[in-house]
Amino acid sequence: MNFEQKYLEYKSRVDQYLVDAIQQTKPHSLYMPLKYVLAGGGKRIRPVLVLLCCEVVGGRSEDALHASAGIEILHNFTLVHDDIMDNANARRGRATVHTRWDNDTAILVGDELLALAYHILLKTSSPRIKEIADVFTDGVIEVCEGQAYDKEFETRAAVTVEDYLLMIRKKTGKMVAVSTEIGGLIGNGGQDKLSAMRSYGELVGRAFQVQDDLLDVIGDEKKFGKTIGGDLKEGKKTYLLLEALRRARGADKKLLKTLIKNHGAAKGKVREFRRIFETTGAIEAARDFVARDIAQAKVELEKMKPSTARDMLYWFTDMLLHRTY
Amino acid sequence: MNFEQKYLEYKSRVDQYLVDAIQQTKPHSLYMPLKYVLAGGGKRIRPVLVLLCCEVVGGRSEDALHASAGIEILHNFTLVHDDIMDNANARRGRATVHTRWDNDTAILVGDELLALAYHILLKTSSPRIKEIADVFTDGVIEVCEGQAYDKEFETRAAVTVEDYLLMIRKKTGKMVAVSTEIGGLIGNGGQDKLSAMRSYGELVGRAFQVQDDLLDVIGDEKKFGKTIGGDLKEGKKTYLLLEALRRARGADKKLLKTLIKNHGAAKGKVREFRRIFETTGAIEAARDFVARDIAQAKVELEKMKPSTARDMLYWFTDMLLHRTY
Repeated sequence: MNFEQKYLEYKSRVDQYLVDAIQQTKPHSLYMPLKYVLAGGGKRIRPVLVLLCCEVVGGRSEDALHASAGIEILHNFTLVHDDIMDNANARRGRATVHTRWDNDTAILVGDELLALAYHILLKTSSPRIKEIADVFTDGVIEVCEGQAYDKEFETRAAVTVEDYLLMIRKKTGKMVAVSTEIGGLIGNGGQDKLSAMRSYGELVGRAFQVQDDLLDVIGDEKKFGKTIGGDLKEGKKTYLLLEALRRARGADKKLLKTLIKNHGAAKGKVREFRRIFETTGAIEAARDFVARDIAQAKVELEKMKPSTARDMLYWFTDMLLHRTY
Repeated sequence: MNFEQKYLEYKSRVDQYLVDAIQQTKPHSLYMPLKYVLAGGGKRIRPVLVLLCCEVVGGRSEDALHASAGIEILHNFTLVHDDIMDNANARRGRATVHTRWDNDTAILVGDELLALAYHILLKTSSPRIKEIADVFTDGVIEVCEGQAYDKEFETRAAVTVEDYLLMIRKKTGKMVAVSTEIGGLIGNGGQDKLSAMRSYGELVGRAFQVQDDLLDVIGDEKKFGKTIGGDLKEGKKTYLLLEALRRARGADKKLLKTLIKNHGAAKGKVREFRRIFETTGAIEAARDFVARDIAQAKVELEKMKPSTARDMLYWFTDMLLHRTY
């Protein structure tokens, strides 16, 4: 079996778990939208990382399946609530919960998803369950902090690349690091292995987010599943925009500042900003940033004993880097 | 020290814990409103029950302090999100989070409160921490289900007293039962004691809610802290309204049905409905219901060894029954 097949197999184990996990149907107003969310698909990156990181420290992926599903449910909780705050109408090609139902439903469904995430995580049979629950909980706290920074940055004029990196470390990186660390905990890895797993997750999570920012500018619309230039149209303070702002001079700098002041670029201006990102070297800087993080992530993987799981993690890391979607 | 003093002392231990618990200040948009919520006071019924129920099975209340605060924070999470859904502008004499800040802030603050509740609960040093976390998590799930039913009932024409009792068992009773059971778990009570603690909590929680419904009709506005007749003005399907509907005939029944259809009583009509509640015997039925639950709750307490904690629980139970606020 090649890695692509193995990834799809692990992914489908998670998908199946999520379908089977919820037998309850009442109250309908809660469980109908909740099942809708969990059936929405997605790349299942976090749960697959839980399974692989359990294996890479010497554990069995079966033992990590509950936690794997718990983390995916936790991720979906953040999506449902973030979509309300971001006024996002669609996700993964379907209407978001607050659009298809209403805000109150989406608030409650998110809350229930968070509780359900704990419920399923706590089914994990491990002598280290207390540590696992602690790592999970710290993850939820940091994700909330990250989302708060993200919202603060929308209205704050002065945001630096460093501010941005702190924000994505909490909002995106942390949940990936939680996945890799919990995988390692269930596999009963030693402290040095756990620390490597955590760093690996942080690096991959951060690279993944900067890559996402890049794809908004240079990606393939059909593959990406989102409208290209969406961040620019909203004036979102991405790595690219902040890096370009730091580097630009003269008329370009003025244009970038106008974009931020107006909270978005006019429709015809997206191409112009893409040029500025190119000429200031912001795109190159973002590519380098991702490549450096991924290289460093691989250094963390080198600390693991050679195994099929480790080889698969190398492959998985590259897949996340080279994706154009 | 009399019981009133002891209650106030326990209450202030919880208040102090909540003030000390959050040292973090950034991101401001998250931690400012979060501290505002936790400084908002309240009767601290649930955390005091955690402490007392730990003692009543033979434990030390100090050991239950983390869990006690965790449960109060969890309760506050439900309040912040419920207030959004209920469009409630004020709570405990202060503006609600979504009124003073905005909906997005209130969603995020609620989420963070839930995570923080786990964070603090998990500080509990107990060999039974897994059971404690499970009981806590089941509580969150049932509270969400209860809130979903509550919202469903707002627009559903046919709601029975039984539907209502299921809803408040989940929405209100469960969290009180979680408090008493977790107290018992930290005190390392045996299965029979834990079961009695749980039943005690369910009964007290249910009685507390029906008492709340009663006070909306017969309470003292200044002491109650809410506008009397508020439920009636909103057409809220309380125990009283549903019981009166079941009992009423003729013109009275018609009036009650109009109230439900119109989602509320006209301003001048509150007195009229109070009369119907009186003459149908709904008020008497509610009083009996509360008295029966409280009597049954005391039967559960009798299963505990005699102690100061048990005496205090008797007193506490009566205080909840006899409160006019």
